[in-house]
Amino acid sequence: MPAGPLARAESLPIADVDIDDAFWSDRVETNRDVTIAHQYDQLEANGCLENLRRAADGETGDFQGPMFIDSDAYKWLEAASYVLANHEDPDLRERVDDVIDLVADAQADDGYLNTYFQLVEPEKRWTSLSFMHELYCAGHLVEAAVAHYEATGEDSLVEVATAFADRIDDEFGPDGRNGVPGHEEIELALVKLYRVTDEERYLDLAQHFLDARGQDPSPLADEFERSDAIGGAEFIHHGNTALEEARNHFLREGAYDGSYAQDHRPIREQETVEGHSVRAMYCYTGVASLLQEVDDEELRTAMERLWENMVTSRMYVTGGIGSEHEHEGFTEDYDLPNESAYAETCAAIGSIFWNRRLFELTTERKYADLIERTLYNGFLSGIGADGEHFFYVNPLETDGDHHRKEWFYVACCPPNAARLLASLERYVYARSTEEDALYVNQYVGSTVETTIGGERVSFAQRTEYPWEGETTIEFTHDDPVSFDLRLRVPEWATNAELTVGGDAVSEPAADGYVSVDRQWAAGDTVSLSFDLPVDAVGADPRVRADAGRLALRRGPLVYCLEDADHSVPVETVTVSGAESFDPVHESDLLGGVTVLRGSGTALDVDAWSDALYRSLDGVDRTEIDVTAVPYYAWDNRESGSMTVWPPRS
Amino acid sequence: MPAGPLARAESLPIADVDIDDAFWSDRVETNRDVTIAHQYDQLEANGCLENLRRAADGETGDFQGPMFIDSDAYKWLEAASYVLANHEDPDLRERVDDVIDLVADAQADDGYLNTYFQLVEPEKRWTSLSFMHELYCAGHLVEAAVAHYEATGEDSLVEVATAFADRIDDEFGPDGRNGVPGHEEIELALVKLYRVTDEERYLDLAQHFLDARGQDPSPLADEFERSDAIGGAEFIHHGNTALEEARNHFLREGAYDGSYAQDHRPIREQETVEGHSVRAMYCYTGVASLLQEVDDEELRTAMERLWENMVTSRMYVTGGIGSEHEHEGFTEDYDLPNESAYAETCAAIGSIFWNRRLFELTTERKYADLIERTLYNGFLSGIGADGEHFFYVNPLETDGDHHRKEWFYVACCPPNAARLLASLERYVYARSTEEDALYVNQYVGSTVETTIGGERVSFAQRTEYPWEGETTIEFTHDDPVSFDLRLRVPEWATNAELTVGGDAVSEPAADGYVSVDRQWAAGDTVSLSFDLPVDAVGADPRVRADAGRLALRRGPLVYCLEDADHSVPVETVTVSGAESFDPVHESDLLGGVTVLRGSGTALDVDAWSDALYRSLDGVDRTEIDVTAVPYYAWDNRESGSMTVWPPRS
Repeated sequence: MPAGPLARAESLPIADVDIDDAFWSDRVETNRDVTIAHQYDQLEANGCLENLRRAADGETGDFQGPMFIDSDAYKWLEAASYVLANHEDPDLRERVDDVIDLVADAQADDGYLNTYFQLVEPEKRWTSLSFMHELYCAGHLVEAAVAHYEATGEDSLVEVATAFADRIDDEFGPDGRNGVPGHEEIELALVKLYRVTDEERYLDLAQHFLDARGQDPSPLADEFERSDAIGGAEFIHHGNTALEEARNHFLREGAYDGSYAQDHRPIREQETVEGHSVRAMYCYTGVASLLQEVDDEELRTAMERLWENMVTSRMYVTGGIGSEHEHEGFTEDYDLPNESAYAETCAAIGSIFWNRRLFELTTERKYADLIERTLYNGFLSGIGADGEHFFYVNPLETDGDHHRKEWFYVACCPPNAARLLASLERYVYARSTEEDALYVNQYVGSTVETTIGGERVSFAQRTEYPWEGETTIEFTHDDPVSFDLRLRVPEWATNAELTVGGDAVSEPAADGYVSVDRQWAAGDTVSLSFDLPVDAVGADPRVRADAGRLALRRGPLVYCLEDADHSVPVETVTVSGAESFDPVHESDLLGGVTVLRGSGTALDVDAWSDALYRSLDGVDRTEIDVTAVPYYAWDNRESGSMTVWPPRS
Repeated sequence: MPAGPLARAESLPIADVDIDDAFWSDRVETNRDVTIAHQYDQLEANGCLENLRRAADGETGDFQGPMFIDSDAYKWLEAASYVLANHEDPDLRERVDDVIDLVADAQADDGYLNTYFQLVEPEKRWTSLSFMHELYCAGHLVEAAVAHYEATGEDSLVEVATAFADRIDDEFGPDGRNGVPGHEEIELALVKLYRVTDEERYLDLAQHFLDARGQDPSPLADEFERSDAIGGAEFIHHGNTALEEARNHFLREGAYDGSYAQDHRPIREQETVEGHSVRAMYCYTGVASLLQEVDDEELRTAMERLWENMVTSRMYVTGGIGSEHEHEGFTEDYDLPNESAYAETCAAIGSIFWNRRLFELTTERKYADLIERTLYNGFLSGIGADGEHFFYVNPLETDGDHHRKEWFYVACCPPNAARLLASLERYVYARSTEEDALYVNQYVGSTVETTIGGERVSFAQRTEYPWEGETTIEFTHDDPVSFDLRLRVPEWATNAELTVGGDAVSEPAADGYVSVDRQWAAGDTVSLSFDLPVDAVGADPRVRADAGRLALRRGPLVYCLEDADHSVPVETVTVSGAESFDPVHESDLLGGVTVLRGSGTALDVDAWSDALYRSLDGVDRTEIDVTAVPYYAWDNRESGSMTVWPPRS
C-alpha cells in the first residue's frame, strides 16, 4: 500500500519486512498459527458465513448476529491476506479463496452486498445510514480486497469490492442521494481502492463522504423523523436493544445530535475529538489518507488540532481512548476514569491507523511515538497470551471481574487485532518520498529487503527491545547505496548514543531522529542505545481520576500492579515514586517480562473491620514488596485486582 | 403514626413537636412556604393533575408523563398534610381538599386508581407488576391518606385509599392472583393503613407481599415471557426508552433476574443489599414496619445483616447509597465511585425511613447516628438553598457540570424531599414503649408538648448544632414527671459532658446514650456538650475510588472543596490531614456555615501544558489556602469543580 503523493514518507510494504523479534515474533506467530484459525471457527459458529451462504443461495430471513456481522468476515480476510503476503500457506490460501467465492456469490447482481438487508429487509437498503452500517461493511470489504490483491496479485475480491464501490458511487456520488455514513470506515477504504485501481471516482467519493459530515441539517437527522420506515426495524421489533440504544446515541434531548458519529460540524471545523472513538479514529484515518492525495490546509490544521486535543486531554496513559461505556467514546477534557474506562481495543487500533497516516504525511516523530505507546500498551492488552482471548474494553483498574473472552456478539475487536498484528511490518520502517532516506520507527527485530531511491537495500535489525534500550542495524546488500538512515529517539529516552561500525557518532538528534547520511553496504552496522529508566508519571492535575496517583513506566511500557504478585490487595498499596523500583527480567513470567521490583506501603484493611470510614489518626502503614508487571500482560494469571495508578505515598 | 406493638420506642408525633432551630427552621419554612407551592405548580405543569381530571371525566388517551406520575400528587398531598399537622393554613388546606376531591373523582367504581391504565390501557391492569408501578402508586396514595388523616382527622382520602387497598387485597390477597410489586412501597404503606384502620387484612397483605418476594419462580419472571400482551406496551411502542431500559434491568443474559427489585431470593435469605436502591430501602422499611407488628427472628436477623452490609461496604461517607446510574442502585462491596456516584436523594430518604423503623424496633444508637449522617449530608444536598431546585443524583466529585433542577420527568425526588422535611419532627425524639423514657436523637431546636407514661411533658431544646456541640433541654411543664431522659452521644463525639441544672453528671454513656432518670418539671435544665473536632477520615482501602484520599468531617457534617473558594481548580489540591484545618463560622456564607480553613498544596497545571502525562520529577507543589464547606451546601454558588475526597499529601 503506497502512501499518496503528498505524503513525505511511505511505510515499507509488508512483503519487504520479515519480523524476527524477541518480543513480537511469538505474538505474530500465534496470531498467524492460532488466532486466524480460531477466528475462522468463530465466523462459522456465529453465523457470519451462514448468512453469506444463505444470501448466495438467494434465501431470505433467518439472519444471524448483529447487522454488521459481514465485517467480521472481511476483517478476517484482510488479516489472512496480510499473513499470505509473507508466508506460503496453501491451506490458508484455499480457505481465503473459499470465503472470497462465498462473498462473490452472495453479492447481488447490481453489486450490492450486505447480508442483513439481503436476507431481512431487501427493500430498506440505504434507509438507515446512521446505524445500520452498510457503508461500514462495504469499507471493510474494500480493505480486505486491497489487502488480498497486494498479497496475492489476484483481483478476485477486488472485483467484488469495485462492483460494490461502483454501486455505492452510483447511489451517493455525483447526482446521487444525500447521505453520510453513520460509522466511518468506507472513506479510508476508498482511498486505498483508488490507489490500487487509479479510479478517480473512488477518491472523489471518499472526499465527498468526508466533506458531507457535519452539514446542517445532516442527512442522518432525517432518519430520526421517520423511524417506522427505516431499515433495521426488524431488529428493533425483535427487541434488539443494542440497536435501540445506538439510535439513542444520535439524540440529545430528543433532537438529532451528530457528535456520536462526528457529524456535529464539518470535520475541518471540529475542535475536539468527540463521540464514538472508533468512528472518530476511522474518520480521521480517512481524512489523513485523503490529505496524502489532496492538498487541503484547513483539513490538515484540523487534524493537528484534533490530535492535540486527544493527546493532551482525552487519552489514557496506555494510549487507550474512550472514557465511557455508554456511547463507547470520548466525553470531556480530562475525564479519564480508570475503572470505568472504555478504551476499546478497536479504538487503540484506529489510533494506530490514524497516526501511521499522519507520520507518512509529516514524518514527525510524535506520531511514531504514539504508535509505539499504543502498540505496547492499549492495543496489546487487548490480546490474551494464548491468542484466543480478547478484551473489548481495557480498563486501567479493576476489582478482578474483567476478563478476556473468546469472542463477542459485536466482534469488532478480535479480527481487528488480528489484522493489525498480521500487518505489524508496516509500522516498523518508512522511506522518504522526497529524498533517499529510511526511517526506523519501531525497534522490532526483522530482516528487510527493499529499495531506497530505486536501489536494492537489505539489512537486519536486532534488538531486545522493549526490555533493553539498544538496537543494531546490519546491512547485507552488496552494492553500496547512499541514503540517510534515521532512527527514532523516543521522546522519553535519555542518553541516546549512536555508533556506526562501533564508532560513536556525536550528531545530536534532530526532530527526534538521529541520522547518518552516507553509503551503506554489507557489513556496515549502526547501533542506537538509550536508557530505559523507570519513571513515575503523574497525570495533568485536571484528570480527577488520577489525582494523588502515579503510574510507573519504563521505556514504551506502562506498568500495573496485580494481586497475583502481592500479599495484599493492590488497591490497598501506596507507592512513593520511581526511585524505589528496579527492573528485573523474569524469563519464566508471563512469557518473559521485565518487572519492576520495589517497595511500597499497604493499609491494613482490618483497621476498617467495623466501619467503612474511619479517622486516619493511628492507622499504620506496613512496608511491603511491590512488583509491577507490564500492563499489556495483565489478566493472564489468576484473577484479582489490578491498577495502573496506585496512590502516591 | 404510632409504632407497632413490638417496637421498643415510638417517634413522637409531628403535632407534638415544633421545630425552632438555627439550622433547620429556615429549611423547614422554605419547604412549607416555597417548596410546597412550587411543587403544586409542577403537578399542574407536568400533566399530573390533568391526568387525574381526565380520568375523573371518564376520558381516555392523552396520558402525560411517566407511568407512575400519580405518585407525584400523592407525595405532594402527604407533604402538605404534614405541614397542616402543625400549621393553620386555610389556603393550603383548601388546595389539599381540592386535590383529594380530584383523586376521589378519578377513582374507578371498583376502587382501582391509576391514571395511566385508566386513560391508556384499561384492559391491562395488573399485567406489568415488574415495571408499571400500579402498586407503588397505590402505596403513595395510602401514605398520603394516613398523613392527611393524622393531620386533619378527616377520612376523605383514607376512604379512597381503603377502597383501593380493598381492591388490591381482593386481587392479590388470599385466593387472589400470584403477584409481587416490581417497585416496593405498598408494603410499608399497608402497615401504616393497618395502624389507622385496625383492618388486619392490610397487615396480612403487607406480609404477603414481603413474603412473596424472591420466590422461585418469581411471578414477575412470567411477564418477561409475554411482552406483547402486558401493560405498558403503549409506552414502549411510543419509544419510551426509559421503560424499555427498566424492563432490561430485570434481565441478565436474557433470563429473568430479580435482584434489581430485591426479588432474587426471599428477603429473609438475602445477604447483601442489591439492585435499585430506592426499591431496596422501601422494601426494608416495609419489613422493619412489619417487624414492629409481627415477631420474626429470621427476618429481623436479615435486617441486621443487610444493614451491616450496606453500612460497612456499600454506602458513601455522606450516607448516600447507589453506586451506579445504569440501574440506580447497589453494585458490589467497596464499589463506590465518587464522580459517577448515583446516591439518589430518594435513596437517602429511604434509608432514613428504614433507620427510623429500626431505631424504634431496637433503640440502638447506630440507627439514629446514620439518620443524622444522612440527613445532614446525602439527603440535604438534594435540596437547593432556594427550595426550588433539587438533585436527583448526588455525586461526591464533579467537574462543575452537575446542577440542581427545578423538576424532573421522573420527579420522585423533589416531593420526597418535601415530605421528609415536612415531617422532620418525627426524627428528633422518641419515647420508649417499655418504660418511661424519652430519647433525644437529633439535636434540633424545638418546643415539645407530649406525654410520657400518660403524663403531660413539655420542654424546649435549644442548640446551635451542627455548628456547636452543645444542646440544652429546659422543661416547662408544671407537674413533675418521672422518666429517663436519654440523649444520644454520636459515635464520633468526644469529651461528652452532661450537666443537670448546671451540675456535672458523671454517668458515662451506656449504649450510646447518656441518661438521667429522675423527676422533671418546669425550670429543670439538662445540657449535653461534646467536642466537634475536625476529622480526616479514610475509606476502607478496598474502596478503590478513595485510595490515597481523605474526607474532612466535623460533627455530623461531611465537607467538600469547591472551586468557588479557591484560586486553583480543586482537583489539583492535595490535603495533608485534619490538623491543618480550623473551623470558622461564616454567617454570611451559604446561609451561615462553619467552614474549615486550612492549607494544602496544589500542582501547577502549567507543568502539563504540552503533555497529559509527565514525569513527577521536578514537579513542584505550591502551598495554598484551602477552605472546605459543608457538602450539603455545594452547588449553591458559581459552578466549578467539587470534591469530597481530595488526595492526601
